[in-house]
Amino acid sequence: MKHFTRIADLGPEGVQQILAKAAAWKKTRPGAIFADRILGMVFFNPSLRTRASFEAAMLRHGGHAIVLEVGAGTWKLEDRDGAVMDSDRAEHVREGVPVLGRYVDALAVRTFSHGDGDAIDELDPVINAFRRFSTVPVLSMESAREHPHQGLADLLTIQEAHGTTKVPVTLTWAPHMKPLPKAVPNSFLLTAAACGAEIRVAHPKGYELAPEVRAEAEKYAAATGGKILYTTDQDAALEGSAAVYAKAWGPSTSSGLEAAPMADLGAWMPTAAHMQKAAKEAIFTHCLPVRRNLEVHDSVLDGPWSRVVDEAENRFHVQRATIDHLLNA
Amino acid sequence: MKHFTRIADLGPEGVQQILAKAAAWKKTRPGAIFADRILGMVFFNPSLRTRASFEAAMLRHGGHAIVLEVGAGTWKLEDRDGAVMDSDRAEHVREGVPVLGRYVDALAVRTFSHGDGDAIDELDPVINAFRRFSTVPVLSMESAREHPHQGLADLLTIQEAHGTTKVPVTLTWAPHMKPLPKAVPNSFLLTAAACGAEIRVAHPKGYELAPEVRAEAEKYAAATGGKILYTTDQDAALEGSAAVYAKAWGPSTSSGLEAAPMADLGAWMPTAAHMQKAAKEAIFTHCLPVRRNLEVHDSVLDGPWSRVVDEAENRFHVQRATIDHLLNA
Amino acid sequence: MKHFTRIADLGPEGVQQILAKAAAWKKTRPGAIFADRILGMVFFNPSLRTRASFEAAMLRHGGHAIVLEVGAGTWKLEDRDGAVMDSDRAEHVREGVPVLGRYVDALAVRTFSHGDGDAIDELDPVINAFRRFSTVPVLSMESAREHPHQGLADLLTIQEAHGTTKVPVTLTWAPHMKPLPKAVPNSFLLTAAACGAEIRVAHPKGYELAPEVRAEAEKYAAATGGKILYTTDQDAALEGSAAVYAKAWGPSTSSGLEAAPMADLGAWMPTAAHMQKAAKEAIFTHCLPVRRNLEVHDSVLDGPWSRVVDEAENRFHVQRATIDHLLNA
Repeated sequence: MKHFTRIADLGPEGVQQILAKAAAWKKTRPGAIFADRILGMVFFNPSLRTRASFEAAMLRHGGHAIVLEVGAGTWKLEDRDGAVMDSDRAEHVREGVPVLGRYVDALAVRTFSHGDGDAIDELDPVINAFRRFSTVPVLSMESAREHPHQGLADLLTIQEAHGTTKVPVTLTWAPHMKPLPKAVPNSFLLTAAACGAEIRVAHPKGYELAPEVRAEAEKYAAATGGKILYTTDQDAALEGSAAVYAKAWGPSTSSGLEAAPMADLGAWMPTAAHMQKAAKEAIFTHCLPVRRNLEVHDSVLDGPWSRVVDEAENRFHVQRATIDHLLNA
Repeated sequence: MKHFTRIADLGPEGVQQILAKAAAWKKTRPGAIFADRILGMVFFNPSLRTRASFEAAMLRHGGHAIVLEVGAGTWKLEDRDGAVMDSDRAEHVREGVPVLGRYVDALAVRTFSHGDGDAIDELDPVINAFRRFSTVPVLSMESAREHPHQGLADLLTIQEAHGTTKVPVTLTWAPHMKPLPKAVPNSFLLTAAACGAEIRVAHPKGYELAPEVRAEAEKYAAATGGKILYTTDQDAALEGSAAVYAKAWGPSTSSGLEAAPMADLGAWMPTAAHMQKAAKEAIFTHCLPVRRNLEVHDSVLDGPWSRVVDEAENRFHVQRATIDHLLNA
Repeated sequence: MKHFTRIADLGPEGVQQILAKAAAWKKTRPGAIFADRILGMVFFNPSLRTRASFEAAMLRHGGHAIVLEVGAGTWKLEDRDGAVMDSDRAEHVREGVPVLGRYVDALAVRTFSHGDGDAIDELDPVINAFRRFSTVPVLSMESAREHPHQGLADLLTIQEAHGTTKVPVTLTWAPHMKPLPKAVPNSFLLTAAACGAEIRVAHPKGYELAPEVRAEAEKYAAATGGKILYTTDQDAALEGSAAVYAKAWGPSTSSGLEAAPMADLGAWMPTAAHMQKAAKEAIFTHCLPVRRNLEVHDSVLDGPWSRVVDEAENRFHVQRATIDHLLNA
């Protein structure tokens, strides 16, 4: 059975096919391609954009969504084999997941990192338990390691702006009050590499992405003719870039390098001055929500570069392509 | 673009058109007038009646609703321009609102008063931010200043009972444990004035409605031949009235008058004896939920006057008329 | 008006008709039998399986569901006549229930026992208030006394395994950390009795089911040729049984017998050794969620006996039959 919870499920060729279908359907809207199909949406964490864009993707094409909010401690899944279930995890994935598969045609799951470190995030235990026990296709609405539909929407936005994804793109770390998960930067890196972009990743010392993710991106870049450069020099990374993607994330737990305190890194916040270092036609994107004037300055978000709302719309377009890939292809 | 978040969006003529359409469609149900349309319903505050009646209005006519519950502190919107977003307001209306507009055909919003006073309620900052940044029509499911669909349902109920809205109607303050918002009495007053009713507003000293709302109501009354009388004499206000609308609300913050403590005002609770002062054919209405025997006595709610359930049904009828006005007209 | 909130609403003949329809429609799926119908789903307690299976039953057949989550203290219903409503129960059933009936075609309600004892559970005040005041059919999604759709799904599963329900079946108490409600064991007992099974109920001393429920089951057994045996000897109850149903429940409050502390009753947890005492073709069922290795051992749930996922699927099948019974028959 096909699942789509990570870029590796598609590989570079599959990514191209999804982007092509998403772009084509943005022009010539498909008909009732999900007629009578039900997407079960399982939220361990809250959502607004992801919720609305996935549900709209079903409803716009004759389908339905059942939204199950299991987060906020009301219902937790046990995924350890052989566990004596005397904790607050009241249901085992061995029952909970196959049961849901009896009612719906596919399961979309949101399950964030618990902040237990890069090694645990790499294992991505909850979404992988869904893959293991589900009898219907599983889609990711963001898990600990990846947010693959975000990555696809990012690259579709770049392709729309420049006619190709084989351009210099910058993924820059941005400031935040909290050490956020790495699923979004991971997915930008992996998807851009699968699309053959020339990627510059800029972040302060100690904020390295996990080695397994970087190795996977190198593999895609080697296959697509892409390039990946890591640097702590934000200015150099922005120089002549065609697309700037900013995102806050927390310190690495696998690099062994000491991270600078986030409070000292305010100068990393992209401003109009930063964007002027990029190429003349450069666009700016962000997964949203974005903290204005802390993570990204108003002058960027309200300036000529911003594609943040278009990119959010593209979530809808890539998602109907991936759901079609799982249900109809 | 058309929005409907306040009676001023329709004016007296528009109100008449909506009531006429609602009354007609109550008899001859329209077909799939919302086929393939999606209403995004954004709740900053919980809802049962409003939720069910709006969602039913879409589903009964081929449409869909996506329900987004953003309240209870899980996701707060920043609406101040230039804010440094380091608070618990994680998303700015400048992104959040236009993004939702990419997925749905209209946005219905519920956002109660925060109890910061009549002047802030008059500004109604959250729903007005939706109006400012939305690329699709915005409907109110109750905001700080008004609950306009409630007002329309109230007047439709009066029109059904008496064949006209140009009758003596009483809006009476009622007791409660808490200082409730004024959106509901404001909307009754504004809509009744837009319908040419002879309105008596009765409340204890210090519980005045805001001057801006009263001025707007006077303007409508002048245009429609209506009349508005304010009094602290509940008996006089009930005398010969064709419709009694009871509602609890909190003290005025703009009149400068000292309000009597709510605990001392129990005699304001409508009873059968109160209703007997009204006209023989008088009806009783309330927006619901109602606290029996505290806000309104059982003898009224279970007596021959009560139209509270019919009025709640009329929410459905006026809402399909306003949604049609925004999406199809 | 027809309701279905307890097995008594159907009686033995009605139960047979529902099971026959559910089994037939599992093979030849019916068409749009709920076209344009709306099921209002009112949750006073959370749900995943029940929520998804009821909503799917509507969506798969042209219908819709409106999901109202009123639990978690956000909105409580007053059901006492004449109450002065100054508590946290902000709406009376006399308004809340008939209003919802103006928007939807049927109301499905989940309202658990509050743990106030068997006598209160027998009265089942909330769901009976819905029956009393609703103007549309009411279905149970589990109330204090019964979970009748669970009972129907259980017996459909037994019928599928053995071609008949007139077989020896065992309802065995199982350990748990908490004194759970009795709605599920009550419904297994009542439905199995209505199906003419030879029922053995095994539980520790002090965990008796309520006398009213047992009397009702005896009445059904007398009509169908079934038998009911109560025992504290789990081994004897399992001997040669064709179906083992395990469930944790709390001590009786009506038997007057002193209950053993639950912590001392770990040996009641079904294991493969227990199942080997049953008939060769015995199946094992449980309503789910189940606490593995506390309530039921892995060796049972992962062994050849388990039908727990099939039984959960059967929730969908019996529910579309009962909804059809209420809306179309």
